[in-house]
Amino acid sequence: MIDKGVFYGVGVGPSDPELVTVKAIKILNSVDVVICPIKNIGEDSFAYSIVKEHIRKDMSILEMVFPMNYKKDELMNKWEANAQRIAEMIHQGKNVAFITLGDPMVYSTYAYLLPYLKELEVEYETISGITSFCLTASRVGVPIVEWNEGFCVVPLRKGVNERVTNALDNFDNIVIMKPSKDCKGLAREIIKRGLEKNMAIVSKAGTKDEAIIRDIKVLMNEEIPYFSTLIIKKSYTFEE
Amino acid sequence: MIDKGVFYGVGVGPSDPELVTVKAIKILNSVDVVICPIKNIGEDSFAYSIVKEHIRKDMSILEMVFPMNYKKDELMNKWEANAQRIAEMIHQGKNVAFITLGDPMVYSTYAYLLPYLKELEVEYETISGITSFCLTASRVGVPIVEWNEGFCVVPLRKGVNERVTNALDNFDNIVIMKPSKDCKGLAREIIKRGLEKNMAIVSKAGTKDEAIIRDIKVLMNEEIPYFSTLIIKKSYTFEE
Repeated sequence: MIDKGVFYGVGVGPSDPELVTVKAIKILNSVDVVICPIKNIGEDSFAYSIVKEHIRKDMSILEMVFPMNYKKDELMNKWEANAQRIAEMIHQGKNVAFITLGDPMVYSTYAYLLPYLKELEVEYETISGITSFCLTASRVGVPIVEWNEGFCVVPLRKGVNERVTNALDNFDNIVIMKPSKDCKGLAREIIKRGLEKNMAIVSKAGTKDEAIIRDIKVLMNEEIPYFSTLIIKKSYTFEE
Repeated sequence: MIDKGVFYGVGVGPSDPELVTVKAIKILNSVDVVICPIKNIGEDSFAYSIVKEHIRKDMSILEMVFPMNYKKDELMNKWEANAQRIAEMIHQGKNVAFITLGDPMVYSTYAYLLPYLKELEVEYETISGITSFCLTASRVGVPIVEWNEGFCVVPLRKGVNERVTNALDNFDNIVIMKPSKDCKGLAREIIKRGLEKNMAIVSKAGTKDEAIIRDIKVLMNEEIPYFSTLIIKKSYTFEE
C-alpha cells in the first residue's frame, strides 16, 4: 500500500512575484505536481505568471479549467469533477500544490474545492498569501483599519446590492472588490453619501500597469479595469 | 548635499518565519537600519523573532518603544517623537526598515507613524504582509469568505460594543481580533444569536503553541491567550 499524498492550497499573493512567501516557494518546489487553475482552455494563468520564476524548470505543471460564471449548478459539477481528479492523484501518493491568487481563504477557487476534497478524505494544508486589499492600501499609503475601528470587504459581482449599501452605511472602512462590475451604480452610492473624496481605487496593483484613481468621475465613466480594488476610508481625505 | 533615504514599513506576517515574503527579506537586508517596535524597554520583539533568521548578522537593529495603552494623547506624543527620530535618520541619507506583525495597513504601529512621516516629507514604501486572520482561516480549513458574501473584521479592545454586535448581526462572516479582551461578553453575544457552533478560535497560530478552540465554554471561562483570533462563519458548522 502506498502512502497518500498531501494537497496544498498555495496563495501566491496579488501580483508581484516578490510578494510570494518563503513557504509558498518551498512547497511549490517540493511537490510532484503544481495545478494552475485557468478560466478556459488555452488561457494564461495569472497566478502561474507570478510564481513561474520561483518554480524549478522540471516541475510538472497541470492546467485545470475552472469556469468563471454565475451558474452555480454547472460550477459545482465542475468543482466536484476537478476534486475527484485531484483526489486520484493524492491517493496515488502524489503531493499536489494548487496555486491561487491572493489568499486561499479569501474568494478563491481553492475554497470551492475544499468541501469535496474533505469528503474524499484528502489531507490538505493551506498556505496563506497576501490579499489584494492589503496591497491596495499599501499603494495608496493609507491604513485599511486602525485603532478601535473595524473594516469590511464586499464584492460587487452582479452589481450594487444591500450588502454593499449596508457596508457603506455601517463601516468606517470599506473595501469593495471588483468595482468594475457596476461602476456607475457604485459611483452613485458613493456620491449619495458624500464619500467621493474618501475613496481611492488601485487597478492592476503591483504590476507595471498599476494605476491609482481618486477621481469619482473615472468610476462614473466606467473606465476601470477588472483587476481593481476600491477602498473607502471615512476618516481620510484622498488628495487627487 | 546628501540624498535622502527611504523608509520601509515591512509586514513580517503573523508568526511563522516561512510566511515572510521574498520582498520583505530583500528589503530587510538592503537597508542601513532595521527598527523593531517594542512595548517596553527590555521586552522582546515578536516581529523581530519572526525575521531574525532572514536578516544578515551584521545588520544594525534599533529597538524603539511604542507603549500599548489607551491614552491617545500620550501615544500621539510618542508617535510624533519616534517619527522625528526616524525622519532624522532618513534625512541623513539612511534607508530604514520598520518591521510590523501581520500587514502594515491592518492595525499596525507603522500606520500611526505614517501621518507624522508624511508631514516630515519622508519618502516611504509599504511592504504587505500576511494577516493573522488569513492564517487563522487556513488553520481551521475554512474560507473567510466565498462567492458573493462579504466579511468584516472588528477588534474587541475594551470590550463588546455596538461595532461588534452590528458585525454579528449584519455579516455572514466575522473576524474578531483580540477576543481575550472580553471573552465572557463576546461568548454571551455569540450564544444570544445561536452561533456557538459557527465559531472557531485559533490562538498563537503558526507557532508551536498553536491551539484551536471550537468550544464556547472555553471562551466563557476566559481561557484564551492574547494572540488569538476568532472567526464566525454563519453558513458553516465547526466540528469539535
